[in-house]
Amino acid sequence: MEEKNSNRGKNVYGVLLAGGVGARMGNVEKPKQFMELGGKPILILALEKFVIHPGFDKILVLAPKQWIRYTQDIMDKHIPQRERAVVIEGGDTRNETIMNAIRYLERERLLDEDTVIVTHDSVRPFVTHRILQENIEAAQQYGACDTVIPATDTIVQSSSHAFVSDIPDRSVMYQGQTPQSFKAKKLKQVYDSLNSQEKEILTDACKIFVMKKEQVRLVQGEVYNIKITYPYDLKVAESLIAGC
Amino acid sequence: MEEKNSNRGKNVYGVLLAGGVGARMGNVEKPKQFMELGGKPILILALEKFVIHPGFDKILVLAPKQWIRYTQDIMDKHIPQRERAVVIEGGDTRNETIMNAIRYLERERLLDEDTVIVTHDSVRPFVTHRILQENIEAAQQYGACDTVIPATDTIVQSSSHAFVSDIPDRSVMYQGQTPQSFKAKKLKQVYDSLNSQEKEILTDACKIFVMKKEQVRLVQGEVYNIKITYPYDLKVAESLIAGC
Repeated sequence: MEEKNSNRGKNVYGVLLAGGVGARMGNVEKPKQFMELGGKPILILALEKFVIHPGFDKILVLAPKQWIRYTQDIMDKHIPQRERAVVIEGGDTRNETIMNAIRYLERERLLDEDTVIVTHDSVRPFVTHRILQENIEAAQQYGACDTVIPATDTIVQSSSHAFVSDIPDRSVMYQGQTPQSFKAKKLKQVYDSLNSQEKEILTDACKIFVMKKEQVRLVQGEVYNIKITYPYDLKVAESLIAGC
Repeated sequence: MEEKNSNRGKNVYGVLLAGGVGARMGNVEKPKQFMELGGKPILILALEKFVIHPGFDKILVLAPKQWIRYTQDIMDKHIPQRERAVVIEGGDTRNETIMNAIRYLERERLLDEDTVIVTHDSVRPFVTHRILQENIEAAQQYGACDTVIPATDTIVQSSSHAFVSDIPDRSVMYQGQTPQSFKAKKLKQVYDSLNSQEKEILTDACKIFVMKKEQVRLVQGEVYNIKITYPYDLKVAESLIAGC
């Protein structure tokens, strides 16, 4: 029986960004997306959220070249029906990694005007079905969206890194999470219009849209949709997964 | 024997802000500063950090009127030498609460040009000796300081609360924590110069200094110096305290 709310075949692709080498995690043997949480690699926990959501035609996992085989192996082990999930080589930067995903869709003749990609940090394993669903819908409707939560801390700006230069009004400040979702062709088009200096500065894909005066819709994230970057985060994540 | 690095008698006061009624914590019977963590009220854990630091002449605990007696009782129970810690009624706003602390110092003839107050959220129990020490020194040297950590998330600005208006360069963005420390007389002076509309907008004491073109030095906080605001934070805090 066909699922009622299924977006399957609707031209939507998950893009799991697993390109990091984990320099901030200290002296660990593996990039942080491969560290285990409750018995499973963090990347697998994030991937599962995409696999069980009916909205994706395919999920592209972008991994560093030397970790592609390893990523395939853990996916074989942990993801029962993994034919929708493929591993692709990431790029040197976050945006180049996203472009590799788009180029893959192009090569596979899967890219048209309405193709949506839902890009997500592989080290944010607590993303929810609702967040994914709202990303798909917002990207389809507005062309781009960013998952955010209202800033819980006061945001402080300092150009000198020594003295405060500004404390902007907190009520208009948000903390960015992922997914960030886009009409893929549009993203490629605006990215290709950047010069190399702009490409170096604009490390956030949503920022490219903002710079080019394109709309980016907000999608409400969750406080617990954390990014596992530091050992501290892993500790927090362990307490979260214990409570699941 | 006199401690070598003691600032005792140096005109430095701790100001623990415990005025909140905890509306964001959901349906709980007590304000969040009184909730227990590892067997002690959160406020007590924060207060202990001040009490064991030799740098403070006195620690002023600012509590809501109806919770003053309760605050005194838990301090009697948990803080062995509590003669340096006094409970004072808080004000209607964060800044009014700080002003109540300064007025107390004035009444007690403890306020002069060099008097420093180290103001701290009573719901940030993981503040450290180093952070307190650097606050004292920075406020003495520069007149004001703010405890911050580099923004871990991308910061997103949205005036419409629906679409992104800006994504500022993350490398100059910080997340504000506490303590915030000040030369108390200077703070009172700049606060008194505000009109009632400005007082309503400038809910952050450091922002008053910034607005008035006064220097505010950055002090490095800690990722784990979290503010316990939501039930999620309490869960994180429990995992942190278990690891202490």
